[in-house]
Amino acid sequence: MRLSRYFLPVLKETPAEAQIVSHRLMLRAGMIKQSAAGIYSWLPLGFKVLRKIENIVHEEQIRAGHIPMQMPTLQSADLWRESGRYDAYGEEMLRITDRHDRDMLYTPTAEELITDIFRSNVSSYKDLPLTMYQIQWKFRDEIRPRFGVMRGREFYMKDGYNFDLSKEDALHAYNRHLVSYLRTYERMGLQAIPMRADSGPIGGDDTHEFLVLAETGESEVFYDSAVTDLTFGDREIDYDSVDQCQAIMEEFTTKYARTDETHDEAVFNEVPEERRRTARGIEVGQIFYFGTKYSDAMGATVQDADGKKVPVHMGSHGIGVSRLLGAIIEASHDENGIIWPEGVTPFHAGIVNLKQGDAEADAACEALEKALIAAGLEPLYDDRKERAGGKFATMDLIGLPWRITVGPRGLKNGVVELTSRRTGESEEMAPEAAVAKLIEIYADHRVSGL
Amino acid sequence: MRLSRYFLPVLKETPAEAQIVSHRLMLRAGMIKQSAAGIYSWLPLGFKVLRKIENIVHEEQIRAGHIPMQMPTLQSADLWRESGRYDAYGEEMLRITDRHDRDMLYTPTAEELITDIFRSNVSSYKDLPLTMYQIQWKFRDEIRPRFGVMRGREFYMKDGYNFDLSKEDALHAYNRHLVSYLRTYERMGLQAIPMRADSGPIGGDDTHEFLVLAETGESEVFYDSAVTDLTFGDREIDYDSVDQCQAIMEEFTTKYARTDETHDEAVFNEVPEERRRTARGIEVGQIFYFGTKYSDAMGATVQDADGKKVPVHMGSHGIGVSRLLGAIIEASHDENGIIWPEGVTPFHAGIVNLKQGDAEADAACEALEKALIAAGLEPLYDDRKERAGGKFATMDLIGLPWRITVGPRGLKNGVVELTSRRTGESEEMAPEAAVAKLIEIYADHRVSGL
Repeated sequence: MRLSRYFLPVLKETPAEAQIVSHRLMLRAGMIKQSAAGIYSWLPLGFKVLRKIENIVHEEQIRAGHIPMQMPTLQSADLWRESGRYDAYGEEMLRITDRHDRDMLYTPTAEELITDIFRSNVSSYKDLPLTMYQIQWKFRDEIRPRFGVMRGREFYMKDGYNFDLSKEDALHAYNRHLVSYLRTYERMGLQAIPMRADSGPIGGDDTHEFLVLAETGESEVFYDSAVTDLTFGDREIDYDSVDQCQAIMEEFTTKYARTDETHDEAVFNEVPEERRRTARGIEVGQIFYFGTKYSDAMGATVQDADGKKVPVHMGSHGIGVSRLLGAIIEASHDENGIIWPEGVTPFHAGIVNLKQGDAEADAACEALEKALIAAGLEPLYDDRKERAGGKFATMDLIGLPWRITVGPRGLKNGVVELTSRRTGESEEMAPEAAVAKLIEIYADHRVSGL
Repeated sequence: MRLSRYFLPVLKETPAEAQIVSHRLMLRAGMIKQSAAGIYSWLPLGFKVLRKIENIVHEEQIRAGHIPMQMPTLQSADLWRESGRYDAYGEEMLRITDRHDRDMLYTPTAEELITDIFRSNVSSYKDLPLTMYQIQWKFRDEIRPRFGVMRGREFYMKDGYNFDLSKEDALHAYNRHLVSYLRTYERMGLQAIPMRADSGPIGGDDTHEFLVLAETGESEVFYDSAVTDLTFGDREIDYDSVDQCQAIMEEFTTKYARTDETHDEAVFNEVPEERRRTARGIEVGQIFYFGTKYSDAMGATVQDADGKKVPVHMGSHGIGVSRLLGAIIEASHDENGIIWPEGVTPFHAGIVNLKQGDAEADAACEALEKALIAAGLEPLYDDRKERAGGKFATMDLIGLPWRITVGPRGLKNGVVELTSRRTGESEEMAPEAAVAKLIEIYADHRVSGL
């Protein structure tokens, strides 16, 4: 992409309304624009990152054997009356009346609708296990939306639902989600720690929240510092293996890590003092096992092997897709702007032409752009007639992890400069070497699709 | 994908509420399920096709130089008051009141919001031309939703908006959209004919609708049969070339082709009688040039080269993404079910095991599945213990364009059977030859991403 043809409305001033750094940087980098309280347009740069995160979530869910589908944003109130949540949900549910005076709502979550789809179509244990998920816009009418996409009203969420014959099977689904989430967040360059949490309006006893440690987090968290040493890495997992999934669940959840809702001072004090940590965390996902809560209320049963009708065991599992942009920026930025992890960066590298209009520099930039595109990478080429300082500031602000700087002086020696946004370190090398190095860097960070 | 692990709730009975064939087939093939009047869940098979169509639209828009972004589904009423459309739109606009009693709406289109984004960020002619688009859920509170996804209330639409300095530039954007749409529909296996139409509530004089001929179409259309001989084919287009885009626009819109709204009997009668056709058509897209209607009303101006403030010239351009599934099925089915064009098929080929449990047949099916996946294709392997007749009926119903049938008898001679859904013709060949043939067939039908 040529910057001269892109729509990247970066702001020089820090917007007054933004209280936290991710909100400030998303506005300044031209990623989002508020259209109403807690409701944002995703400008091109923001949309690109949103789509990358969405695709990583899709890839990892499909890898775990979960089936993508999509439910509508508006639902009839009737199903929510069946579960009892229409009255229980409170003012955060946006209630709508259509032209025929029917009660509708903008869905904050979809346990009822997916249970209805299940009960309408599945009647035998032979069709289990089954896990379906969607990534879809949701709405919660927050009384005081704030922190940009971190606590907006319209937000993009992955929500998945498992249907199993027994509690044991449903707990395997729970563990499978936990494993797939660990992998998902790591691909985004995030450490998200599963912590014992409270189930809130979804219900159920077993639940873990995934939290990213950050000073601006909304939750206070307590943990054994040993949990931050755990990494998932590139393990190959058989998601059908009950033992493998359970072992990983135990590895990642045995050490003390809890939100303030479930914090237990006495248990915490058993952790060696030098490893006890109190911090703040941003919630980026949550998994639940809630048994037969919805299947009982809504009559979602199957015939078991003995021909007996039994309610299915269920859980639900969410990832805050739009909120993840904020969480990643909170965890990865400096005073000059965002620092995107390679897995989610909107463009793989920036190309800065120090002397736009110089025939040799222009040709070298175009050749680099072409070579990167041919290798399946997406460069952002700043081809504007701007001072070098302004170009560097824009690249630093929008946070592309790698920058290639091209100027007449270097080209005389046959070199360009490759700079890491994270370390600030630069290396001179031939243009071909820079392309080769970027191909190598991104070999492990490919995301399918747009 | 193994069918035993998929969620494909096919129906044996034809649902009584469905009046047209695409609606019947989408319900029977387990692609959608109605959750409220005119509001559907996209079950896994339907979602897969929806996503493919979405990705084709993205690829072709990006190829034309248009920039993807995304606007929210809910908007504040204020912007719509500025343009005057809040009062003008009528009861099809779903109006919503939030917990703070603010007037909101579920957006049926987004001229106002994109114009607001533009005027907030662009002030110089140097930033033009600019075309941005989104693919997002929309809502129209139809009084009598019907025909499944063809006339639903919640629907998925691509809407793009161009901003140009002059009428001339904006008409190039118009032509560029026309060209990109021709390419888009052809990739989906559709012939969509641009016809002169009426602009309705969007406004403006210049507009073409793209119509797919089908008996169940909602519009009566009149055309010179010579337009159906035109194909876009694999032309390489420079979308920046005014002349190339205009030539294609003229090639495809000069011959008589109009909807009943703009039909002119006198002009029609100049077409040689044997080429005059009257038929019905399904609208799958529309392009508009409406000049300064919104930029005047909302103050979207730029400084021109002389430093003078001038309103920008705009147009908007839509593709009915969710409705396209219905249109494709209306245009491509037979008495046994859907016949997906290769470009949008949810799975590239079905594998039918005639004797599930037979070690040799199972192994051959698994090897085929593995080889197709390794080639980047997605097979659907029917591994259920069902009669062959039932498996064939399911494959015919869901409409995968190619089926590989594997049985012990054929395997003894080293062959499987490759069957075309469209022609019904079968050919015996070695499994490796079947894989090679499918790779060749799909070489021109790759869609990025999920």
